[in-house]
Amino acid sequence: MGEAQVSLRHLYRVFTKPEHQDSKLAQIEQHLSDNILDFLSQHVVTKKTSLEEIEQDFSDSKVPESPEFVSSHAESLLDKLVAHSVNTYSPTFIGHMTSALPYFHLPLSKLMVGLNQNLVKIETSKAFTPLERQVLGMMHNLVYDNDESFYQRYLHSARHALGAFCSGGTIANITALWVARNKALGAQKGFAGVAKEGLASAYRHYGINNLGVMCSKRGHYSLSKAVDALGIGRQQLLALPCPTQTLQPEDALKAGKAYQEEGNRLLAIVGVGGTTETGHIDPLDELADVASELGCWFHVDAAWGGATLFSKKHRHKLKGIERADSVTIDAHKQMYVPMGAGMALFKDPENANVVRHHAQYILREGSKDLGATTLEGSRNGMAMMVYSSLHIFGRRGYELLIDQSIEKAKTFADMINRHPDFELITAPTLSLLTYRVCPAAIQARLQVAAEQEVNTLNQTLDRLIVNVQKLQREAGKSFVSRTRLESPGYPDRSVTVFRVVLANPLTTHHDLAAILAEQHMIASGTEDWRDLEDGKYSLTA
Amino acid sequence: MGEAQVSLRHLYRVFTKPEHQDSKLAQIEQHLSDNILDFLSQHVVTKKTSLEEIEQDFSDSKVPESPEFVSSHAESLLDKLVAHSVNTYSPTFIGHMTSALPYFHLPLSKLMVGLNQNLVKIETSKAFTPLERQVLGMMHNLVYDNDESFYQRYLHSARHALGAFCSGGTIANITALWVARNKALGAQKGFAGVAKEGLASAYRHYGINNLGVMCSKRGHYSLSKAVDALGIGRQQLLALPCPTQTLQPEDALKAGKAYQEEGNRLLAIVGVGGTTETGHIDPLDELADVASELGCWFHVDAAWGGATLFSKKHRHKLKGIERADSVTIDAHKQMYVPMGAGMALFKDPENANVVRHHAQYILREGSKDLGATTLEGSRNGMAMMVYSSLHIFGRRGYELLIDQSIEKAKTFADMINRHPDFELITAPTLSLLTYRVCPAAIQARLQVAAEQEVNTLNQTLDRLIVNVQKLQREAGKSFVSRTRLESPGYPDRSVTVFRVVLANPLTTHHDLAAILAEQHMIASGTEDWRDLEDGKYSLTA
Repeated sequence: MGEAQVSLRHLYRVFTKPEHQDSKLAQIEQHLSDNILDFLSQHVVTKKTSLEEIEQDFSDSKVPESPEFVSSHAESLLDKLVAHSVNTYSPTFIGHMTSALPYFHLPLSKLMVGLNQNLVKIETSKAFTPLERQVLGMMHNLVYDNDESFYQRYLHSARHALGAFCSGGTIANITALWVARNKALGAQKGFAGVAKEGLASAYRHYGINNLGVMCSKRGHYSLSKAVDALGIGRQQLLALPCPTQTLQPEDALKAGKAYQEEGNRLLAIVGVGGTTETGHIDPLDELADVASELGCWFHVDAAWGGATLFSKKHRHKLKGIERADSVTIDAHKQMYVPMGAGMALFKDPENANVVRHHAQYILREGSKDLGATTLEGSRNGMAMMVYSSLHIFGRRGYELLIDQSIEKAKTFADMINRHPDFELITAPTLSLLTYRVCPAAIQARLQVAAEQEVNTLNQTLDRLIVNVQKLQREAGKSFVSRTRLESPGYPDRSVTVFRVVLANPLTTHHDLAAILAEQHMIASGTEDWRDLEDGKYSLTA
Repeated sequence: MGEAQVSLRHLYRVFTKPEHQDSKLAQIEQHLSDNILDFLSQHVVTKKTSLEEIEQDFSDSKVPESPEFVSSHAESLLDKLVAHSVNTYSPTFIGHMTSALPYFHLPLSKLMVGLNQNLVKIETSKAFTPLERQVLGMMHNLVYDNDESFYQRYLHSARHALGAFCSGGTIANITALWVARNKALGAQKGFAGVAKEGLASAYRHYGINNLGVMCSKRGHYSLSKAVDALGIGRQQLLALPCPTQTLQPEDALKAGKAYQEEGNRLLAIVGVGGTTETGHIDPLDELADVASELGCWFHVDAAWGGATLFSKKHRHKLKGIERADSVTIDAHKQMYVPMGAGMALFKDPENANVVRHHAQYILREGSKDLGATTLEGSRNGMAMMVYSSLHIFGRRGYELLIDQSIEKAKTFADMINRHPDFELITAPTLSLLTYRVCPAAIQARLQVAAEQEVNTLNQTLDRLIVNVQKLQREAGKSFVSRTRLESPGYPDRSVTVFRVVLANPLTTHHDLAAILAEQHMIASGTEDWRDLEDGKYSLTA
């Protein structure tokens, strides 16, 4: 590996001299531009390499002493990093929410880095600030659909914020609950507000024993981080059981009332608009009623499902979202924007003021600097990616993408239902579904067996699913994820299931059939499968 | 503007068909690659356009209904956005910490987006996970310099974290104080810990009246956000006055003791390793002693100055940083990485466990998923940018960049000192300095005048500086920022000053001389200047 000359001249060169068009890095770039699928299939190694082996390449803890030539570094990036990364563009990588991106994001990402704007303040972002405000306004409009005069008044108002752009759904959820907390425990006569005085004083002032946040057990794990970080405490995250995958309004009301009767205060109900595990949507409209009856904040975590609002056919599934005080949407999920584009939207543009802060050198009173009401400070120009996507796809383009994803999930669910040795665990509401492989005879047995036998069989199946998921991942042709959940069929005990997200527009029905076939082949080669077919567990039960 | 056909075929095309090499977006890309300075100077309009005018282009709150062709969209991006963005690459844009980036980040950003990895979990990042751990290890090593066996043990340990990679310094500071808080108020007999039980219970259990965080008045505004979000309360941020720009250890000790004697508990002292406003470094070694004496956490916010550790000549300025329990460093500042690369480092790799969390479908017990101990969830592959920069620059490359930035700041300080009509307010410790324009006669007068006259003169000068800074910015040739601060010359009252950050390697001495000349010209054309020279304020005083 060449050691580059350490000189100011060399260093200025990396700032001022473009990559030579024959350089390795330029070649990589060209290959990405010409055919990204080909680039990935050529460079991402599919054969199994253990994590321990990969770690060997990243085990030196010393900062390299001497500079390295860009081209030789690019060579080593290909060998060590790209070769052992995950081909998220692959149509058979359907285990997580990360998928192929449209081509135009490649040049746009270069433009974003080339412009190197910092959105925390107008002085380093200028037009990016109104652009980000417009993007937030468009998403706000998509959710809340206020009239034009509302947006004329608030879109570019220095004293208001329709939302906060952030790095992702977790920060968006934290931001929303931060605003909810500061609003609920705000300043009053004799009390300067929780932002200034802190949580313990606020509890004393308001006579609160505990402050709680309610969601279903399918609520995203970021909610647990949020209540921890915000000082509320994880024990006060009231995660109600939900064999149906959704938060039942009557359960929520009952639990909320009981909680309040114990001298606690319910801060917020979080409805999920597309759970990460199964894609289910809580009954948002009814939950809005419950929140209203209990007098608490209503937040909707639509990080995944928010984009469903683009579809005339499916947007009714999110009915009630327009009653939420705050909504989380990730553009890097179903809006096919690169990672790092989360948004928290606020129904009332005044509300973000409860977390407003100023500094002497930026974010001065009256400025339109976006950093005044965000949890993060310096931020890049990701809003441009969302802006461009909104224009290049348009609502009708997103609608088609959303509709066909859901269609595909339904087709896959049909395939699973038709296959004797697979069992659908949760049907798709959006483009997610869960299922498991299970010999037909065992499926029949599970219908009639006593509890003990059901449990024994399910334990074996749990082990089988973990095993098949790992072997399939290691084989490298395709990837589904797995999780554990209660379901209508098995309400009392979680079972392990395959989880798929059919968001990649490149995934075909043929791919899905091949994935099932591979899983069946892997499963039927295992000892557990043979034991199940031999009736071993049924006999011993 | 062309309306693209809304069809699945068209939509698949943006996922599968590369940009044509003659397309507008491809042309933009090529121009960026060939000569980014030329691209920016050709497309970024320097003439003044008011924010209100720019907002007109971003005032529609409706999501566009129909798709737009990529090329026509690219055209409109150039006109509306690029034209009115800020040329942060310009050698005369020296007002903030955002500057030119090395060329190699342009193709690397494309690779990052092309790979679209998600670092929250290994299943969507694979080699990126060990890579990010290695980057954290290298930075940890740079700060703490432990022996090799330490890093062999912890670098890739599933049960430890040497740090948390995050979107920026604000999240890094919040993460560090979150860990400090959860550690200080941890589980004990009869108490499950603040993470689970919340802050109010923790205060009761530990008999705490208030929990405080101490820093100087130059502490970054993110600390105020942190104590707000974490439930500690902004009033408990003990920001001590610092006319010398640094937190005095004896003041810190005295204030800390007094705070504790009032029945409060000091959670942390935050030392700043390069303040955002003046680049000063707190006496970290002495502050470590104070923290130790007071029995509290010691955090160092070296978001800006951390990279100084690469320089053998200047790293002594940060002496004591290796005693910090946690350290914040932003790679997107003096490491010349694109926006979005913050790090919180932890001296003790066990400590991050106090914020560890799990989920059923990812972050499972025993996994090496990086998301288990970060505040954020999904994150992109920014660590690759830091990794590549560490290799391409090497320690010695960064050393040269740091050394010459500081050298340049000293040269600029000399220019200011030599110029009769400028007054240096804070001399550079790192590459930042503050100064103001002030007629020579007034400088002399300020030395001898009584308090009232000094105040009147300073008020006029404050107004003058604001005015000059705005006019210079609007003229579009150069940009310095401004802030207000106390200084040894004016310890009792803040004065408004120009603030510059000399981080851009492209900035020459000639550029600096031109900036001073322009400021002098603008200033001497103002009414305030004439009034000052005419002795108006001295006479009326």
